[in-house]
This record gives sequence, C-alpha cells and structure tokens, in this order.
Amino acid sequence: MAKKKTTRKSPASTAPPADIGLIGLAVMGQNIVLNMADHGFKVAVYNRTTEKMLDFVADAEANEPAHGNLVPCKTLKQLVASIKRPRKIMFLVKSSAPDRHTRDAVDTVIDQLLPLIDKGDILIDGGNSMWEATIRREHELAPKGIHFVGSGVSGGEEGARFGPSLMPGGSKDSWKQLKPIWNAVAAKVDRATGKPIEGAERGKPVKGGVPCTAHIGPDGAGHYVKMVHNGIEYGDMQLICESYHLMKHLLGMKPDEMSDVFAKWNKGDLDSFLIEITADILQQRDPRNKRRFLVDVILDRAGQKGTGKWTSKNALDMGVTAPSIAEAVFARCLSAIKDERVDASTTLKGPKPKRIKDPKERKALLKAIHDALYCSKICSYAQGFALMAEAQNEYDWKLNFGQIAMIWRGGCIIRARFLQKIKEAFDANKKLANLLLDPYFRGKVDKGQKSWRKVVALAAETGVPCPQMMSALAYYDGYRSAVLPANLLQGQRDYFGAHTYERTDEPRGKKFHVDWPEPGRPEVAG
Amino acid sequence: MAKKKTTRKSPASTAPPADIGLIGLAVMGQNIVLNMADHGFKVAVYNRTTEKMLDFVADAEANEPAHGNLVPCKTLKQLVASIKRPRKIMFLVKSSAPDRHTRDAVDTVIDQLLPLIDKGDILIDGGNSMWEATIRREHELAPKGIHFVGSGVSGGEEGARFGPSLMPGGSKDSWKQLKPIWNAVAAKVDRATGKPIEGAERGKPVKGGVPCTAHIGPDGAGHYVKMVHNGIEYGDMQLICESYHLMKHLLGMKPDEMSDVFAKWNKGDLDSFLIEITADILQQRDPRNKRRFLVDVILDRAGQKGTGKWTSKNALDMGVTAPSIAEAVFARCLSAIKDERVDASTTLKGPKPKRIKDPKERKALLKAIHDALYCSKICSYAQGFALMAEAQNEYDWKLNFGQIAMIWRGGCIIRARFLQKIKEAFDANKKLANLLLDPYFRGKVDKGQKSWRKVVALAAETGVPCPQMMSALAYYDGYRSAVLPANLLQGQRDYFGAHTYERTDEPRGKKFHVDWPEPGRPEVAG
Repeated sequence: MAKKKTTRKSPASTAPPADIGLIGLAVMGQNIVLNMADHGFKVAVYNRTTEKMLDFVADAEANEPAHGNLVPCKTLKQLVASIKRPRKIMFLVKSSAPDRHTRDAVDTVIDQLLPLIDKGDILIDGGNSMWEATIRREHELAPKGIHFVGSGVSGGEEGARFGPSLMPGGSKDSWKQLKPIWNAVAAKVDRATGKPIEGAERGKPVKGGVPCTAHIGPDGAGHYVKMVHNGIEYGDMQLICESYHLMKHLLGMKPDEMSDVFAKWNKGDLDSFLIEITADILQQRDPRNKRRFLVDVILDRAGQKGTGKWTSKNALDMGVTAPSIAEAVFARCLSAIKDERVDASTTLKGPKPKRIKDPKERKALLKAIHDALYCSKICSYAQGFALMAEAQNEYDWKLNFGQIAMIWRGGCIIRARFLQKIKEAFDANKKLANLLLDPYFRGKVDKGQKSWRKVVALAAETGVPCPQMMSALAYYDGYRSAVLPANLLQGQRDYFGAHTYERTDEPRGKKFHVDWPEPGRPEVAG
Repeated sequence: MAKKKTTRKSPASTAPPADIGLIGLAVMGQNIVLNMADHGFKVAVYNRTTEKMLDFVADAEANEPAHGNLVPCKTLKQLVASIKRPRKIMFLVKSSAPDRHTRDAVDTVIDQLLPLIDKGDILIDGGNSMWEATIRREHELAPKGIHFVGSGVSGGEEGARFGPSLMPGGSKDSWKQLKPIWNAVAAKVDRATGKPIEGAERGKPVKGGVPCTAHIGPDGAGHYVKMVHNGIEYGDMQLICESYHLMKHLLGMKPDEMSDVFAKWNKGDLDSFLIEITADILQQRDPRNKRRFLVDVILDRAGQKGTGKWTSKNALDMGVTAPSIAEAVFARCLSAIKDERVDASTTLKGPKPKRIKDPKERKALLKAIHDALYCSKICSYAQGFALMAEAQNEYDWKLNFGQIAMIWRGGCIIRARFLQKIKEAFDANKKLANLLLDPYFRGKVDKGQKSWRKVVALAAETGVPCPQMMSALAYYDGYRSAVLPANLLQGQRDYFGAHTYERTDEPRGKKFHVDWPEPGRPEVAG
C-alpha cells in the first residue's frame, strides 16, 4: 500500500474517470466489463497482455454498445490512477489454491496492487476462489485498511454479459460501496413472481425488478455460498443425466422425443434453466451430419473444475450428510475412465435390457421419472442448505437463506421456479432445520415418493445406474428414521476399540463400555 | 540431533539393554509393549506422566508375563540412552493434524527427540497420522539422517496385545532394522489357508505362520494404506448395519435370531472378524436387565475418528469413484443428528411397513440380504484398491496389492477369508484394473446380483434406508457401462460455460464447441 497520506491530491489534474477497475480480460472478465458499461459505469480495464486489452477495447467500442465507457490501462499504476476513490478493483484471474495455505495468482495480483492503492480501497475477487483462501486474504488485508471482497459470479458467459447472480462476501462497508454497481449488473427477477425478467437478460435496464445479488456475509461467505451453488448445480445436472439415461434405456427414446419431454417439464415444477437448455441440447443436430443428434456423438467423459469436490469435502469435514453432491462428483469421476468402462462392459454382466412398450406404461414411467427427479432434487437442495447452516456456525456467519434462494432465482445456472418456493420456505421459518420439513416440499415429496421408489427399484432391477436418485432416496429414508442401525455400529466400535456407547435410557453424552469378548462382564462407565 | 560423532562410546559403561523404545502408554501403547515383551524384546518405556509409566511397569511385571523385559525411563534422555543403536523409538501419541501443514503432538515428540538421537536412528509413528503429514515428516528428517517410519497399526486393543496387522512405510533400510520385531509381534496366518492362527492371538509364537506385516512403501505409504483399511472398515460396518436394519424391519427378527444368521454367514463367504463380532454383539444381554438385548438399548448415534473422512476426501481429490466409503461416512453423520431425525420422523411420511411372513419368502430374503451384503462388499473393496492404485501414481509408490491383502488377512479389523481371494486375484494379475474384473469376484457378483437388485428394490419400496447397498449397485452398473449419460452433461457444460466437448468420432483430447443458444451455428475447435 502507498505510504502517502490518504488525503493527498489525485496525481492527475482532472478527477479520475472510472467507477471501477477490472483486471483479467478472459471471457468472463470481458463480459462483466461490457455489462457494467451497458449500465453506464465507466470501467478501467487492464490485462497482463496489453494487446489483448487493446483488442478488447477496440472491439467493444466498434461492435458492442460500450458507449465510450471503457478506460484502457496499460499498467496497473495507470489502472489505479484512473479509478475514483475509494477505488473498486475487481479481478477475474485463475485461482488454483486448493486450501487456505497455498498462494496463487490471486495473491500475486493483490501483492502487485498493494503498493499502489490506499486505505479504504476495495479489492474484489470475482473468480471461483476457495472460500478459506478468501477468509485468509480478507484477514490479511483488513489490518491494512483494505477491503477484500470475494464475490461469487454465477451464470457462465451469458450471465456475466447480461445479468449474473452475484454473491459478495466481505465487510458491510464495502457492500455499501459496491451495491449500486452490483444491483445494476445483476440479473433481475420479477418482484411478484420471482421469475427472471427477460429484458434484464439482454442488457436492458428493467425498472422494478429485484436484483439477484445481496451481501452474503463476512469474509469468505460469498465464495462459500457460490461453492455450494456449484455443488447443487452438479447435483441438478447429474439428476437430469440419470433421467435421460432412464428414458434412453427403458423407453428407447430418441433425443428429440426426450427434448419434448424436458420442454414440457420446463412448464411445471421443474421449470429451470438447466431443464430448458437440456431440451435445447437434445434437439440440436450434429453440425457435421444433420441426420444425427449432436448429443449422440459427444463423448461421455465429463470434466470438472473442483467446486463440487470442495463442497463434498467440506460436507465430510463438517460432518453434514450431503451424499447427493458427492455422488454427482463421483459420477463424473466414473465417466472419466471411459476406456476402463468399455473394457469392463465386455465382461461384467447385468440384467437383460427391458424395453417398456405399452403406451400407458410408458406414460406412467415418464411421470415417475419426473417425480424421481423432482424429489431427488429437493433432497439435494435440502443437503446444500443444511451445509450452509453448518458453515455459518463453523465460520460465525449469519446467513439469510431466504435471501440466498432469492438471489439464485435469476442469472445463475441453477435458476428455477423452485427457488421461489425455497425462499418462501425460509421466509416463513428462518430456523427451518431442513428443507424437507417445510410443508410445501414435504407435501411434494409425499406426493412423488411412490413414483420415486418405483423408479429406483426399476433402475436396480434393470441395471441402469442412478447413483444420485438412489442416494437421495436413502437420504430421505434415513433422515425420517427415528432409529437408524448405528446402535449396532456403536456396539461394534465398543467391541473392538473400546470406543464406548451411549444408552437410550441414560442422558446423552454419558458413556458406557462392556468387555464384549467376555460375555457376562458388567457394564462400566466409558 | 546430537552434534557428537556417531562413533562415540555409550555413556553407560554397560551396553544399553533395550531393543526398542516406546513413548506414549495409553492402551494401544501398553499393549504393543506387552506384545513385544512377550516375544522376548527388551522395551524401554516412557510416558509424559511418569506415574502412569511406573504403574504400568509394576503392573506388567506383577500381572502380565513381562519377563523383566521392560526398562522404565523417567526422561526421554534416559529412554534414548537405554536403546541399542541404531535406535528404534516408536511413539503412540494423539495425532491431530488434518493436513500436511499443521504441526501436532507427533511433531512435538520428534522435536524433543531430535537433540538426543543420532544419525541412523529410526523414529516410528504408530498412531493414525494423516499420511501427508507423515510424508512431510519423512522429508524433513531424511536430510538429517534420521529414518522416519509411519507404521499403521490395526486390530484395536486386542490386536495390539496379541498380534496386530502392521503397515510400515519409510525407507527400505529402516524396514531391515524393524523387520525382526515387526514380524514377531504381528498377527500370523496359516501359510496354506491364509486363516489367522489362533495361537498367535494369545501371544504364543507360532512356527510357520505368515506375519501380517510387510514394507508397504516409502514415506507415507504405510499410513495411507492404513487409512484406506479404515475406510474399507467403515464400509464393512455400514453394510452389516444395513443388513441388520433390513432383517429388523422386513422380517421382524429379534437380535438373537439375527445373531444366529450372522454366525451362520461367518462360516461361508462372509467369514470375517466383523461378522463374527456382530453375531457376538447381537446375543449380548443388557447387563442391567438380562431380559433385554444390549443392542436394543444402545443409542443409534455413531462416532468417528476421521480416517473414513480422509479416505473419502482423498478419493474426491484424486478423482477416484469411491462412493461406498463416502456413503458409510455420511451414514454416520446422519446417525449423529438423532434429535433432528426423531423430529423428522413425526412429519415425513414413508410407505406402510411390510412384514414378510411366509417362511419360504423369509428364507429367500435372508439369502438375498447375504448376497447384497457380499456383492456390495466386493464393490467397496474394489473402490479401496482402485484408490490405492491411484495413490501410488500420485505419490510415486510401488504398492504390492497382493501383499496388502495378505497382511490384512489377520490381526486387523477387516480380517476375512475374502482377503485371501483378493490376494490371489492380485497375485494372478498384478495389473488388475479393478477387483470386479477378477474372474473369481466377477463370478460371485454375477451369481449374487439378482438377489442384490431385489434387496435394493425392496429397500426402495419399503423405505428402509440402505445408502451403501444402493450406492454400490449404482457403482457396479456405472462401471460396467460402456456409455454413461455424461455426453449430455458435457453438452450442458458446453452450453452454459463453453467448457467444450470431445466427439466419439474424433481422437481423445480434441475439443469442440458449439454456440448452442443459437441453433444451427457451426462447430468450432475448443
């Protein structure tokens, strides 16, 4: 940080023109800049490769309606000098730190900026940084008087360009400064229905819409919530894949037929971006051969960027049952070993394929798959919110779950009608222990569970792998079990490791031990 | 480390008497000392609280056949001076580091010993330390000429006393030094049958038995393999619990009836320590009221020490599909929120309970549960071995999987007849990609899968939570799928995030992208 007094005059004779600065002009960075410019903000832009920055600015002025709102900067010094104070400097650089200890490109940018900026300035990390690294950075910068904000950005390239869901952490003071810009660029949903406002998706400012952003909480809360969002996204995608797989194997449906089903589902309870694009994807033809569907020539080997993995690891660390997200991550891992699967498929046997032909049965099964997807989705979200509830204890945050559901209603990948209902559930009961207990969702699961059970049973019998629908069902049945078989497990642990057990007829925490291998020995306090 | 030359004379006029030193006299430490003493080794013992050490030595000489083999040491200096060189000093202290960075009680002991010991000495960590911390310690100590060995010890208190399974990592040189002691104290199995030799379990040296220990590999390999052992143990225990839960709910069996079933199973393919003790546990009466079974008054709230969690996190990190272990960990987490479950049980609905009464059907279901348990167990082990196969690439180890299965045949918690077959599978094919592909196990799963599918379907329909049997089945069906629905997933990822996809008709690694939201756009290289 500059040693100069914070009251010094600006070095330029004219006031610095930019409302915010942005470092890192890959696609996401470019699109956020254009989004800000659309909304009338002046943005100072910098990229490590100057040429890329110059190309971008020239392009934006020529082809995009950038309205002269971009300030090209060839150096970080120039960037800093171009921004109004307190400065807001956002960066979208590739983070790689897998934990709180490791330093990565985000730290490098911070280190480069520190000698140039002043107390009260705000640094914003818009990438997918690990939330514990964000906590560390915030704690390192706060004593220097610098605000550090980890702000999750969801919605992919399109979202960044025309309205993302924004999840900023950091101090309340910094949120006051960011709020006008964040509210302007975020996606908007209709105040009454909670549905995304179309105009907002094409860069037209909309009056009266609710922006999909809010201050999530201190330090790493924003990045944490963004991570859970991504974990839930993994779950949603896997559930759609399992539904597709069931339709393909049990009903022998072609992609365009399935497209129609997903398009129909998109008009009901499952109304969501991911269902919508699935309908789109399934009707896309192979550009090389229009007689084929593109999905049929895409290799079934999934990639991942790590946020689903982090979510699952954190669930394990905090002891929160979140198997839906973990199973979705594992399903991607299994898809990745394509050659091994192809080999295994030649020797490992399964049931004979079963194709349902009766039209009535087919219709009933489609309805059942819909219900299985929907009920599993509710369980997956229940786990995600339970995770955030535990995290707020762990990190001493105060999260507003209704608000989080609200800002996920538009802009982001998991945007869905469904989230309006989650918002209502948490608005009605701020201390709701689990989404499954909310009357609306409880009713939906109750109505759908017969179908869900039927689909899982059918998947088991016919050999169609549905790890997530199965895992979600086991979660539901476990969660509603007053008694689980962990009594036997505690007996085993006490038998071989003297780990002690509690008794149902004694107060919690009181521990007992028996010398099991010698039957008849008295019970002793553990 | 002492600055004195390594050729200096011993400070005492007589040669130091002890073969090995042991620090940390909690139950495990005490039992390992007694085991060593049984086998004629002289053991120098030290504990932070001197009184505990003195009590232990007095007790051991009076009540246990310690044969005067213990050398009580009130200080670490005394301990070090009492041991023959190169010194072997083992410690069993509570490790707590959750990662490679954090320093814990193990580091404290090492720091205290360093000024006292000499080049060539061997420090042995016999606790459940995190394998990455073990790698760090080995790398820190190697340049100082000190051998550091992380040696997993399995078998609980009984195992430590009468023959554990020992999984040492560290250098080959240190293994040469440790081998005579490790071979002597380890459990023994019959060379021909692979079954544990009873005598070895009661401290009587047995001729001709194969000791359940071997050099696992460099640095953290021993602790890693011990961790996977524990992860597999979590899986085994959960599968037994699910079987018990099914018998209880679908067949209404009483604990002693189930005990008979497990005792019978213990004579067949499932022959194992955990099945054996389950039979024991289920017939144990409540010491307070002999008309009740103890298992019925144990609270269904499971504890855990973290190795299952580590295994699952590592699987996620390495991208290896190991849901069986993760589901077992999550099942424990779900058991832990007892009050929430009791609450949920009053509002969340499920199917009406179904009780099977027909004797023939009951018999068939018991057989089916047996098969479901066995097939799921094979999948769980397949995942554990796949995990170790990936870890050896990650950490540049050369693991001998046949040998690992071999040393798990006796002494440890997962000891089972089954492991002999795993040993044979890897002996027959050192490069076996997955246990499921071995002809023996492939045949077993093929024979049992119809029952397994039936049990999973029944669990789904009747609402008995069987997360692990379900997850294992989905794993099996996923692993044998030449085509998984990840093609659709890659389409989704390319749609919203331009993450690109591969094509089935192009070489692997060649990436493509389509501008999905604008149908009809050409495909471009990614």
